[in-house]
Amino acid sequence: MLIPEALEEKARRGRPREACGVVGLFGVKDAAAVAALGLHALQHRGQESAGVASCLNGEFFLHRDMGLVANVFGKGEARKLPGFSAIGHVRYSTAGGSRLVNAQPLLASYVGGTVALAHNGNLCGGDDLSRALLEKGALLQTSTDSELFLHLLAQRHALADEEIAGVFAGAGAAFAVVLLLGDRLLAARDPWGFRPLALGRLEGGVVIASESCAFDQMGAVFEREIDPGEMLICSAGGERSLRFGESATLLAKCLLELIYFSRPDSFVFGHSPHIFRKSSGHALAREHPVRADLVVAIPDSGFSAAMGFADELGLPVDRGLIRNHYVGRSFIAPGQEARTAAVRMKHNVVREVVRGKRVVLVDDSLIRGTTTAALGKELRDAGASEVHLRIACPPTRYPCLYGVDFPHPQELMAFRYSLDEICSILNMDSLAYLSLEGMLALFPPEERGFCTACWSGEYRA
Amino acid sequence: MLIPEALEEKARRGRPREACGVVGLFGVKDAAAVAALGLHALQHRGQESAGVASCLNGEFFLHRDMGLVANVFGKGEARKLPGFSAIGHVRYSTAGGSRLVNAQPLLASYVGGTVALAHNGNLCGGDDLSRALLEKGALLQTSTDSELFLHLLAQRHALADEEIAGVFAGAGAAFAVVLLLGDRLLAARDPWGFRPLALGRLEGGVVIASESCAFDQMGAVFEREIDPGEMLICSAGGERSLRFGESATLLAKCLLELIYFSRPDSFVFGHSPHIFRKSSGHALAREHPVRADLVVAIPDSGFSAAMGFADELGLPVDRGLIRNHYVGRSFIAPGQEARTAAVRMKHNVVREVVRGKRVVLVDDSLIRGTTTAALGKELRDAGASEVHLRIACPPTRYPCLYGVDFPHPQELMAFRYSLDEICSILNMDSLAYLSLEGMLALFPPEERGFCTACWSGEYRA
Amino acid sequence: MLIPEALEEKARRGRPREACGVVGLFGVKDAAAVAALGLHALQHRGQESAGVASCLNGEFFLHRDMGLVANVFGKGEARKLPGFSAIGHVRYSTAGGSRLVNAQPLLASYVGGTVALAHNGNLCGGDDLSRALLEKGALLQTSTDSELFLHLLAQRHALADEEIAGVFAGAGAAFAVVLLLGDRLLAARDPWGFRPLALGRLEGGVVIASESCAFDQMGAVFEREIDPGEMLICSAGGERSLRFGESATLLAKCLLELIYFSRPDSFVFGHSPHIFRKSSGHALAREHPVRADLVVAIPDSGFSAAMGFADELGLPVDRGLIRNHYVGRSFIAPGQEARTAAVRMKHNVVREVVRGKRVVLVDDSLIRGTTTAALGKELRDAGASEVHLRIACPPTRYPCLYGVDFPHPQELMAFRYSLDEICSILNMDSLAYLSLEGMLALFPPEERGFCTACWSGEYRA
Amino acid sequence: MLIPEALEEKARRGRPREACGVVGLFGVKDAAAVAALGLHALQHRGQESAGVASCLNGEFFLHRDMGLVANVFGKGEARKLPGFSAIGHVRYSTAGGSRLVNAQPLLASYVGGTVALAHNGNLCGGDDLSRALLEKGALLQTSTDSELFLHLLAQRHALADEEIAGVFAGAGAAFAVVLLLGDRLLAARDPWGFRPLALGRLEGGVVIASESCAFDQMGAVFEREIDPGEMLICSAGGERSLRFGESATLLAKCLLELIYFSRPDSFVFGHSPHIFRKSSGHALAREHPVRADLVVAIPDSGFSAAMGFADELGLPVDRGLIRNHYVGRSFIAPGQEARTAAVRMKHNVVREVVRGKRVVLVDDSLIRGTTTAALGKELRDAGASEVHLRIACPPTRYPCLYGVDFPHPQELMAFRYSLDEICSILNMDSLAYLSLEGMLALFPPEERGFCTACWSGEYRA
Repeated sequence: MLIPEALEEKARRGRPREACGVVGLFGVKDAAAVAALGLHALQHRGQESAGVASCLNGEFFLHRDMGLVANVFGKGEARKLPGFSAIGHVRYSTAGGSRLVNAQPLLASYVGGTVALAHNGNLCGGDDLSRALLEKGALLQTSTDSELFLHLLAQRHALADEEIAGVFAGAGAAFAVVLLLGDRLLAARDPWGFRPLALGRLEGGVVIASESCAFDQMGAVFEREIDPGEMLICSAGGERSLRFGESATLLAKCLLELIYFSRPDSFVFGHSPHIFRKSSGHALAREHPVRADLVVAIPDSGFSAAMGFADELGLPVDRGLIRNHYVGRSFIAPGQEARTAAVRMKHNVVREVVRGKRVVLVDDSLIRGTTTAALGKELRDAGASEVHLRIACPPTRYPCLYGVDFPHPQELMAFRYSLDEICSILNMDSLAYLSLEGMLALFPPEERGFCTACWSGEYRA
Repeated sequence: MLIPEALEEKARRGRPREACGVVGLFGVKDAAAVAALGLHALQHRGQESAGVASCLNGEFFLHRDMGLVANVFGKGEARKLPGFSAIGHVRYSTAGGSRLVNAQPLLASYVGGTVALAHNGNLCGGDDLSRALLEKGALLQTSTDSELFLHLLAQRHALADEEIAGVFAGAGAAFAVVLLLGDRLLAARDPWGFRPLALGRLEGGVVIASESCAFDQMGAVFEREIDPGEMLICSAGGERSLRFGESATLLAKCLLELIYFSRPDSFVFGHSPHIFRKSSGHALAREHPVRADLVVAIPDSGFSAAMGFADELGLPVDRGLIRNHYVGRSFIAPGQEARTAAVRMKHNVVREVVRGKRVVLVDDSLIRGTTTAALGKELRDAGASEVHLRIACPPTRYPCLYGVDFPHPQELMAFRYSLDEICSILNMDSLAYLSLEGMLALFPPEERGFCTACWSGEYRA
Repeated sequence: MLIPEALEEKARRGRPREACGVVGLFGVKDAAAVAALGLHALQHRGQESAGVASCLNGEFFLHRDMGLVANVFGKGEARKLPGFSAIGHVRYSTAGGSRLVNAQPLLASYVGGTVALAHNGNLCGGDDLSRALLEKGALLQTSTDSELFLHLLAQRHALADEEIAGVFAGAGAAFAVVLLLGDRLLAARDPWGFRPLALGRLEGGVVIASESCAFDQMGAVFEREIDPGEMLICSAGGERSLRFGESATLLAKCLLELIYFSRPDSFVFGHSPHIFRKSSGHALAREHPVRADLVVAIPDSGFSAAMGFADELGLPVDRGLIRNHYVGRSFIAPGQEARTAAVRMKHNVVREVVRGKRVVLVDDSLIRGTTTAALGKELRDAGASEVHLRIACPPTRYPCLYGVDFPHPQELMAFRYSLDEICSILNMDSLAYLSLEGMLALFPPEERGFCTACWSGEYRA
Repeated sequence: MLIPEALEEKARRGRPREACGVVGLFGVKDAAAVAALGLHALQHRGQESAGVASCLNGEFFLHRDMGLVANVFGKGEARKLPGFSAIGHVRYSTAGGSRLVNAQPLLASYVGGTVALAHNGNLCGGDDLSRALLEKGALLQTSTDSELFLHLLAQRHALADEEIAGVFAGAGAAFAVVLLLGDRLLAARDPWGFRPLALGRLEGGVVIASESCAFDQMGAVFEREIDPGEMLICSAGGERSLRFGESATLLAKCLLELIYFSRPDSFVFGHSPHIFRKSSGHALAREHPVRADLVVAIPDSGFSAAMGFADELGLPVDRGLIRNHYVGRSFIAPGQEARTAAVRMKHNVVREVVRGKRVVLVDDSLIRGTTTAALGKELRDAGASEVHLRIACPPTRYPCLYGVDFPHPQELMAFRYSLDEICSILNMDSLAYLSLEGMLALFPPEERGFCTACWSGEYRA
């Protein structure tokens, strides 16, 4: 564990951005082991660290470590965490290296007792918040925003549900959190609803998860999503909800969840990500058709959009690129060097499929373009006569303040270059993105309320 | 390392079956590191252990351990193995647990000097061979057939190329091996050609690999396949080939390589596995069409066949099942308990795709049926109105003697049950396999020469 | 890392007791690596965890983990911690298992900046202190007293040296701490002087350590001990000292340091522990002589006292017991089960030495008596005709509140049983302890000022 | 596991020298776990690797790995090795790095069945033997002599006890081996008796160990030593012994076992090593008295001899040097660099003991002199007015061919330099060794039969 110093680092590099996954259980047998199972289903949301905290008779137990869920809990570690309530977390760490001290759940004592927390998101006013907390005498022991929640609880002596809801109301955006107390489990989502959080049932108990695919893995049944601005309280006396903030006017659900983050088999913001992505492919094809022989997805991220794109144009879709699944998802690996290596070790062309063909390459998004440029070159080397690139979302030009770890703007292709420049840099015969209007038109008018900041620069919180 | 005793185990459980991957390099800079890179591309062929042996100025260096290539060589271990020639191996261990002592390459000294060996295959006359060797005073220190090659070299004092070719000629089937000597690299394939082995070029040096996808990973260029009954010798003086056995009359290439084992982006036995699998899907659809709304592949093994099947019938193919890639390939995990767990942790249904639909489920093969039965149930639970199963190869009824680790016949569905019984057990609305004739008709008449033993019971060697 | 919940545990089990070792360096090249070397020399003070924090240009670096120094820093980890100032810590964890979260140095940010802390001792008013801190909004993230220092700094906004000295003045006893700030190193010892702390010189820089043996290991030269109630400040501008508390009236140096904890080759509280222990053996022999053939030390703790005892009576001392050094020190291993196993695996009798002999067994202290009882039996089994036990300190009857991890009083032999009962339980022919008066008489009158609480029950702080 | 090639290495570096420890059990409950316990007591004989093989109903089980017994068997690994018979081994590896492939026990199959072997010693005719074996078709898979035994069994089809005894008769020297077969345990010692091997009883079963201290650890009772040239056979039918070779005329017991290797609390070659070492100190003092104030042992190796030396001259012995036991024994650590580091990290002077004193430094042997030179300097730096060195054995001038890993003769002080030169190099005021005559005179005339090769150059085998 090498920890460059905490606060200063924040000032220098910008706050850490996290895109994590959380689970919570209350009233479930072997809660910790079931939580670990759920985390496995959320592994795509964070591969740097994994952890579970459980509670039995007011006593807390915690196990967390760097690595995949299968490594951290692969030898029965979860079975040593007793109790009928638990929370869990998978973390996607960012610049500055992997630090065990930042792994979650966090466990701490404050005047109200002991509490464990797992947080997905990023407090965009976190710098001001931490300055204010330090002024009041707080001692920050991690470099995560997540710790700030606990300091707010501690400094305000928040113990009753209403007090804790008050803390959430003042925390800004973005968060989806589960909080384990000695006698209850709390689950809350910020009033903007940036990050998803769902409620399910398992054996008469309550299950919370970032995505519903965790319910399938745990054998639980999806019931509904936690509302933006809702704090659900699960205790021996049953469940109830408190509302905080003014969610109706603010709503800013993160579209990247539907486009990229969530597993296709989840149910997020009322949608199937797979169906949504197919629709975006249809819309993209309508906006930017191309005369070609073949549609090829960048696997696995472009699969669904490519199917919609091909279907709209009546083109065949084929496996022109094969992915070696023995390495991780490039977007999610910290550090540029690992990413470069990953490009070379992750995709390979099927020459027999693309040779002599006009190929449309489809992906869900284009961030740095490193991988895409490499794949374009490989397709041409394998004999493709034309390579056209179609991206199923608008150009990504602005940083996210709400918990998605984007590279520095200077590394965002669409920030630095014009469309023509990008097309030229990537050596494509043509390039087109789905328009923001086209993206939003995929939803019925009454459903709007999404964050578009990374494309439009309009930050709602 | 827990090693149940070696020979007795063979007697009790039948010989270990292996489906491994090998690489060899001669005249290549940083040969060991490049070998490890190539092994990463062959990781799908064996995940139990990985190893590389290199040679510099007649001195040998070896590193091997249990685990994935990324684990065994993830900290620069390969860079500590100097030299311009190297061989590598990934192993798929079998019943009896994972044993380091069985990891390859093997390294040993005999009267001719020192030699390292990596072997893909299984000597079907191995029991007789090891008995004969023991009678002559051999000391067996592993429980693998691969060791027998080295004992044959030692007992026959084989040193010259022709003598070594004589050893290969007498070894029976099946093998694709690379042998590293102090001054040269040998690569040989049994006269039946059961297992694949290819030759490529890298920086003026020679590269050998089980599948051509390893060449892509290493940056090498595919040249040709090693012929059945060919022993290629690479030395400072250049390359030459010796022939042994009577390959023309024997040819028995393993069709499972095309159907299942090889990566879709490789080039094996003169074919693209992906293209071949699509063709098999077309043929399957012609033989056993079905009235349905949707074709769903069992990911990832059924992808290619499902595309051909859907195309033939003009049906859409959609992602009704999603695979969580954070676990390994079920067929390849040793021990039934791990497999059961893997079923639950690997696939999930996209309800929105299959709800109310008549689904055709397509896979490349049906062995035990455990996973398939579970998926059929999950599809129905998710609302599929009908589920039809189509398998893109004939019923697997007989054990493999040539290096593929099949379960005990009693665990092979098609051995124990009739077609109707299987359909009923798997709770499918209909079930059909591609016929053996249909399978063989995919090849031109002059190309025949495949092993069909696991379907037909006709063993050619 | 399994963390039973923090605060509640304290309430239930009594506060964790620690007997740790600390080092600090300022203005020394490769400070972190030298710190690790120093920790190796202090390994006897704590074997549960080890850690080093360094600072370069205001940026902090930290590495800490469970295990021995050789394990935690055995692969060059310290060389990755840059800077010319560093602090280090070895920890002796206690009941409740080993917890990484409690490993030191602690690193945190407060309003004054970032700070790292390493602490040897225990705040005997810690429960009140932590209650007061919690009331003021503190968030406790470990279950150690050491964290309280940092909270006091944070809540009082202590930044200037005088403010920090004020924090130390209010912290009670017992502590010897090193504090690393962005621009300076602080070293302080509580006004009672319970725990030792020494100052040395290395290459023109300053070195701090719990015991002088660390200086020998680091190649530094001992200069003096830090005074009780002194806070030494080392900065680019030089060194200066602040005084806090009223040390002269309070002095309570822990005699166990001389009797047991410190290495015989250190220089602690102005004494050589080895010479002191020999003197205690002389005094013990004068108080409680015994007619015997042979003096045998319980190795290694009783070596020095046994030499003095034998010398006083003109008896030979011989190696009747041999220690297997491949296991750790029994007193210092947490958990009774490990201790029982350790007894069996640590000592063995030399039959030829004790057979037919009247043996005096000498040790420095008697706590639980488990090991001693076992050794007594083994000596008799080996043929000793008589076994007399002499203990070179008074009967240990009371718990330590100042940082030594004693077992529960019910496990202290001298608390539960009379001298005769103990003699009978241990199956000794006679038993005697050095009297408290005899112990104190070993010092000149002007030097008094030692804590005798664990023998007398008189607690000075 | 990095394995430089096997045979060639032997040619270049000379054969590996081993000073290992073995145990064997027959008819003992939980034999493997008890074997691991015994190995812990023999840990001083080898710290590179540890292993245990057990047998149940003709099936063999093996666990071995690099590292200390506590590491290799610290998580209950031995409890997974079933059976009532087992053998174990601790290995002291040598130049060329630590190699798992050389760890013992070895397990292999030959025409007679399966066999496991653990060997302490070195076959001095091993090079010829391995050449002959290779000529006959053997395949060598380790770089140890120990493997040669198994090849001899295999090539001679040795199965009956008499045949196996014949193999031992032809193996030359030096060996103490235990051999586990499906139905019996064999223990044998070469006819010269170079290495020790003892027989004990445990719960009605048989226990074999290199030193009797292992019996104490296992709770077994020493019965007798295995005779030189004896092969003990333990089977369900009881025990019997075969004799091979002509031991009476050859006897060459290794005196270093008494002087250095064996634990002081063992019983070896009919002697207590501690008592023997004290006697050697007496003799040394008679031969080379010195006028001094104080005798200081180099801990722990010189303890016993220093006691005898001081007693003979009526001088006090005191703890002028303290050893930090958190590192290993210098003689036994492979590689010069580790040794240099170990010197600095292992011993420290007690200034108060030696300041102003004339010190006699006593050790059991002087090999390279590196440590001794460093300690002499440290004693003077600490204020000793004179430092005299006395060595309780003759000058070590010649290599050992029988299994003790000596450095190259050029690294042996007594080979390169005269007595005066050594005295000057080590900066001693005087230096003297016990004479060979003095050493041998410690035994009664009828007991002679020791190997003195490393002092005299007279090799008996």
